[in-house]
Amino acid sequence: MTAAPPPAGLLDAVAAYEAALMADDVATLDRLFAPGPATLRADAEGVLVGHEAIAAFRTARGGAPRRTVVQTHVQVVDADHALVVVVTELARGGRGLMTQLWARAAGVLEHGGWQVTAAHVSVPAPALDSRVWRVVGDPLVPPPGVHPRDEGPLAGQTVAVKDLYAVAGHAVGAGNPAWLAQAPVESAHAGAVARLLDAGAAVRGIARTDEFAYSLAGANAHSGTPPNAAAPYRLPGGSSSGSATAVGLGHATIGLGTDTGGSIRVPAAYQGLHGIRTTHGAVDRTGLLPLAPDFDTVGWLTRSADLLQAVGDVLLPPGSPGGADDLVVASGLLDLAEPDVAAAVRAWATAAGAAEVQLPLDRLDDWRTAFQTWQAAQAWTAHGPWLDGRLDVLGADVRSRFAHAATVDAGTATGARAVLDDARLRLRELVGDRVLVLPSAPSVAPPAATGATPENRTATMRLTCLAGIAGLPAVSLPVRTADGLPAGVCLVAAAGRDRDLLALAAGRPGPG
Amino acid sequence: MTAAPPPAGLLDAVAAYEAALMADDVATLDRLFAPGPATLRADAEGVLVGHEAIAAFRTARGGAPRRTVVQTHVQVVDADHALVVVVTELARGGRGLMTQLWARAAGVLEHGGWQVTAAHVSVPAPALDSRVWRVVGDPLVPPPGVHPRDEGPLAGQTVAVKDLYAVAGHAVGAGNPAWLAQAPVESAHAGAVARLLDAGAAVRGIARTDEFAYSLAGANAHSGTPPNAAAPYRLPGGSSSGSATAVGLGHATIGLGTDTGGSIRVPAAYQGLHGIRTTHGAVDRTGLLPLAPDFDTVGWLTRSADLLQAVGDVLLPPGSPGGADDLVVASGLLDLAEPDVAAAVRAWATAAGAAEVQLPLDRLDDWRTAFQTWQAAQAWTAHGPWLDGRLDVLGADVRSRFAHAATVDAGTATGARAVLDDARLRLRELVGDRVLVLPSAPSVAPPAATGATPENRTATMRLTCLAGIAGLPAVSLPVRTADGLPAGVCLVAAAGRDRDLLALAAGRPGPG
Repeated sequence: MTAAPPPAGLLDAVAAYEAALMADDVATLDRLFAPGPATLRADAEGVLVGHEAIAAFRTARGGAPRRTVVQTHVQVVDADHALVVVVTELARGGRGLMTQLWARAAGVLEHGGWQVTAAHVSVPAPALDSRVWRVVGDPLVPPPGVHPRDEGPLAGQTVAVKDLYAVAGHAVGAGNPAWLAQAPVESAHAGAVARLLDAGAAVRGIARTDEFAYSLAGANAHSGTPPNAAAPYRLPGGSSSGSATAVGLGHATIGLGTDTGGSIRVPAAYQGLHGIRTTHGAVDRTGLLPLAPDFDTVGWLTRSADLLQAVGDVLLPPGSPGGADDLVVASGLLDLAEPDVAAAVRAWATAAGAAEVQLPLDRLDDWRTAFQTWQAAQAWTAHGPWLDGRLDVLGADVRSRFAHAATVDAGTATGARAVLDDARLRLRELVGDRVLVLPSAPSVAPPAATGATPENRTATMRLTCLAGIAGLPAVSLPVRTADGLPAGVCLVAAAGRDRDLLALAAGRPGPG
Repeated sequence: MTAAPPPAGLLDAVAAYEAALMADDVATLDRLFAPGPATLRADAEGVLVGHEAIAAFRTARGGAPRRTVVQTHVQVVDADHALVVVVTELARGGRGLMTQLWARAAGVLEHGGWQVTAAHVSVPAPALDSRVWRVVGDPLVPPPGVHPRDEGPLAGQTVAVKDLYAVAGHAVGAGNPAWLAQAPVESAHAGAVARLLDAGAAVRGIARTDEFAYSLAGANAHSGTPPNAAAPYRLPGGSSSGSATAVGLGHATIGLGTDTGGSIRVPAAYQGLHGIRTTHGAVDRTGLLPLAPDFDTVGWLTRSADLLQAVGDVLLPPGSPGGADDLVVASGLLDLAEPDVAAAVRAWATAAGAAEVQLPLDRLDDWRTAFQTWQAAQAWTAHGPWLDGRLDVLGADVRSRFAHAATVDAGTATGARAVLDDARLRLRELVGDRVLVLPSAPSVAPPAATGATPENRTATMRLTCLAGIAGLPAVSLPVRTADGLPAGVCLVAAAGRDRDLLALAAGRPGPG
């Protein structure tokens, strides 16, 4: 099939495509792609199916990088079909690759009737994906000790450190360039980072975070939205977004993050990862930039429950207060999730033999409101002194949150604290020595293009605030919805039972 | 064409391909690819043409990463042809993409006659390309001053710093892991790095080098061979290999390197870049790990002559000793290059109006030998104290060079120095106030699979030692051979005429 000369008009159409691409002539490009729902365009981000989706992508991207064609290979199928493989040199450096299946459509006059029915485009990888990382190395920080370093329970593991933890030799960026510009270079590693290094792990790099960790979306106005490796074109979840995506992409094996109001559990759920929010106060927070100290916890994400547990063996205090492995699930909590997520969590709970219980959750929205109020008050205490008068350095979403935080008066804050003190006792009682099963997040990852709505944030915090208020450990395990999208099962137990949850998770493998 | 169901047997063949790939069953994979010279396989490294080249690649790679198919899209052309687009999830994380054109071959019984005639494979980008970089950031080191930083002649530029220069907060690795493991964290930037930062450039990262810069190949036994962005499957040239490839790939705009015996000029030639080796002693070498101080110089690589010059405006001392822009070319030097390179350099010289001159080069091989002897003596003085007794930490190529260096006795070294003192005077006289045109390297980049031969290294140093011995500045400009491969034109002038050479180069643009 392949030695034949290109069919008449094909190379002219290929040249017209290239010219239109360089001119960002979207109308011509749209006409050069075959109409209909079966046309394909694929690149590193995912596969777009259908002319409509491809046209929408093309309109949004604002032009392709400047390039020159250096090789064109043609495989002729017949007079009306051919595969074209084009090698390009990019003006900014590196080579690109484009494979297109062309077909001659009857009745189309333009370009001899030639249209692309499928395209696969590759561009050279950047030095680093700056949506995911601020700094990365091979390694950035090696474990201490002799070379070669092959000892310790975490030997060979690589850590993506959320840009809230001190890494010696680097400043803490907190997801905000203005903060980073004035932040001092740290002279010592944060406690959790030092422990991981001592256990033989290497620091792969410093991963992006939502600004000051004050978001659950995983978007960052300055460095962009990290991709969701398990659910293309969807939000990665935050605020431990870069740590989670780094693990999702295989850039690191351990994503060190934090969880104040869901910042481990939400990205774990959205990206199909394993994650743990530890018991409040159980893991050393030295060298960690605070958001709301009454809720801030150290957490981490991995691709396997075994590694999640191995990290726990290094970071957690020894022992457990004891308790049962009885799983319980409450319909009232499942009902707070979208039906697809609720079904996936219920299926997991049923398979795991969880007992159905009724929980008195009538005050849940009061508790959530109090959580958000006290979180805001503490966030302003932590960051108000620097942010006051320069809120404009923040992206819109986080700016509005801090702007609100600035308005929380002492009386309101104290009232919220009182509600939380009561809620904390009641929630600890409700959980008791059992393991509560609930959705890690109420929905699958929202589309990145539209972002997370305020309603989604509220619905998320309604679920995630429970462990936050009570200071309880929470492990998120990956499940899939009927549509095949990642979601999370959250297991919550009594304070100090982190190791029990990790063992439970390791004994119940997720869906591959 | 696309709504039709897949032709009989196609999906079975696709499944058989996947199973064979996961089993690294090379024989089955070879049979599933169509025989003949027109079969294609393309990935980020380049395009392999013909069944033979593809089979050789497959045998050499030792298996593909573990993966699971998550989507399969089929576009049917006719009963005997279809395009298949497969999305995979890699076990290590991230998603891969594979597009294949399948054809049913008459007379082939296995797999229903289905064979792949073309494939395009993408895997997720790693956190960083550790062949090119040791550490990389966005940026790794920002320029000093207020945020946002948009001032200075090099504002917006990014620098790949060869891993011989001090970058504050990091150790100097010198391309060797054992050296790196014992190297102290630097507290100040090297002089050249500090100047670039002060001019508004940011440090993108620390780039790989051949071990202790003692090679011209661009291979590193520990971190691998950086790709050559302009000539796939060929050596990048060294020892400033990572800096050059970083610029070639568009990861950085300025590659800061060194040139002792060609370590800027060779990668510039191999990768189609602009490069300068500066007058010996003209640019501050503070914070630079030495190889052979009598020859070591600061140099840099860029994608344009304009930027090459702009960096010179920052790093070079002001002024010039004066001299003519008369270009001269010597057949005796062109004859030292392969015919394809000689032809490209001659064509450039002719177009530039260079006059043909005869140079008395009968002692050239004595000079080269003396250069290599004195370089070895100085390299052992610099690194012998640490390397003595631990030469086994080095890769074979560099180890053999240092092992030889250890044997150079004082008498031999002194004799070589005397030859060089004489050669230096004669070479400076030969160049005079003219600009000598010669090949930057005697060949195009050798294939990475076979590497650089000892003969190639000798032939290279025969050309590159001239500027090294005489301490003269040398600019390399990109040209192409008749086959379209990158080669370098080298311009050499009197000591201190760096700025004249840069101006000359900027006035004579390369081939795009």
